[in-house]
Amino acid sequence: MAQNIYDDPAFFAGYSQLPRQVHGLAAAPEWPAVRALLPDLAGKAVVDLGCGFGWFARWAREQGAAAVTGLDVSARMIARAKALTEDPAIAYEIADLETLDLAPAAFDFAYSALAFHYIADFGRLVRMIRRALRPGARLVFTIEHPIYMAAAHPHWSRDEDGRKTWPVNGYALEGERRTNWFADGVIKHHRRLGTTLNGLIAAGFTVCHVEEFAPTAAQIAENPGLAEELERPMLLLVSAQRREDSAREGLRP
Amino acid sequence: MAQNIYDDPAFFAGYSQLPRQVHGLAAAPEWPAVRALLPDLAGKAVVDLGCGFGWFARWAREQGAAAVTGLDVSARMIARAKALTEDPAIAYEIADLETLDLAPAAFDFAYSALAFHYIADFGRLVRMIRRALRPGARLVFTIEHPIYMAAAHPHWSRDEDGRKTWPVNGYALEGERRTNWFADGVIKHHRRLGTTLNGLIAAGFTVCHVEEFAPTAAQIAENPGLAEELERPMLLLVSAQRREDSAREGLRP
Repeated sequence: MAQNIYDDPAFFAGYSQLPRQVHGLAAAPEWPAVRALLPDLAGKAVVDLGCGFGWFARWAREQGAAAVTGLDVSARMIARAKALTEDPAIAYEIADLETLDLAPAAFDFAYSALAFHYIADFGRLVRMIRRALRPGARLVFTIEHPIYMAAAHPHWSRDEDGRKTWPVNGYALEGERRTNWFADGVIKHHRRLGTTLNGLIAAGFTVCHVEEFAPTAAQIAENPGLAEELERPMLLLVSAQRREDSAREGLRP
Repeated sequence: MAQNIYDDPAFFAGYSQLPRQVHGLAAAPEWPAVRALLPDLAGKAVVDLGCGFGWFARWAREQGAAAVTGLDVSARMIARAKALTEDPAIAYEIADLETLDLAPAAFDFAYSALAFHYIADFGRLVRMIRRALRPGARLVFTIEHPIYMAAAHPHWSRDEDGRKTWPVNGYALEGERRTNWFADGVIKHHRRLGTTLNGLIAAGFTVCHVEEFAPTAAQIAENPGLAEELERPMLLLVSAQRREDSAREGLRP
């Protein structure tokens, strides 16, 4: 099972204070870029994998989604999501993405924000998601960018001109990365960008868009601290579409 | 037009001594990984964009390609390629990929090794290549990896444990990068990995495989100097397939 750091009291206390948890989607700088990748949700059955406090689930309903299933490994998260939601068309459940098995062809759209980099077996996960989607349905997800995650000591340094510079090492050495973030020993799983995309393709998805998030000039003007995000990507946004079997046959590497 | 550094005498003299120029494809560590992405070439009309001394063109003919067109911006390269080739089914021509316009539906396979990162307008290039390919045909190309190219001062440093570490800055700031490599002021064009893939998708390709080249354990055992390639990717290998219009309609971001 995936490490459930979110139910660690110290972690949960810190994490709950993040602007995106307190204020919701609009407090996440990448949200406009994510939103640009989303299909029309009107009338759709949506699943959110790693739903946290349910901000996306409630937003999807505002956009006209017929029903939203929000899943999260954290009992604390799910409890908070339920407390924040009064909508019988949103169902929240505790679920471990490492072992989850959704019903086949149950959803028109799958979403996940910043959850898949906690999962060791990405191939199993995306094959399961593909089965749970209806033909032509989309999967849009965000993860920490592998450039951000790879190094043994991922923190800013300075180059010879004094410019903020991010270290990369161990990029080809995939697997566990342990960091301290609100709690010690948070376990993430580093995969090369190519591994993530090839995993999707092998599972029967077509890659539609790959966005290495960078803030816009307007965002930087409003929040100058975001300028460092131009130096190295922290987040990867991917849009993929369920490919049908006949197309899959033609898509060997 | 693209900078033609290859016709600079000092550059050409140094470049010509690279093992891959002297000994051909097998001297390039990434060649087995590239070869794994190639379709069966028997009977096919092949174009090589940035053909250098023609090693790939001659190899493609050994694999049964019906005809190979090798194009390069460098008159010196083309002269050397012609001198090394005695095969009426291989044609070499001087051509600038920045302005090249191939005949529509003329080729069954397009190949390019380490040339596209010299090109400013990648979108124009891949739209032109798509038109020049027949339905279902593949494009396989290699470029310098954007992690390798992005930084203002791209060279090894050491992290606090003394581990070889590669700097990344300016990743989101696409455009010219000037380096000194056999000659001063070699101009390359940095694009984010997502920009390269989205350019292909927008041009009407399906992304089939994305390989961030890393040497195998056997390659490192034979050549220990390759171990540093595990720390950061130097090369990006991409396989894409010409998508037909009906499929393209469905592939908005």
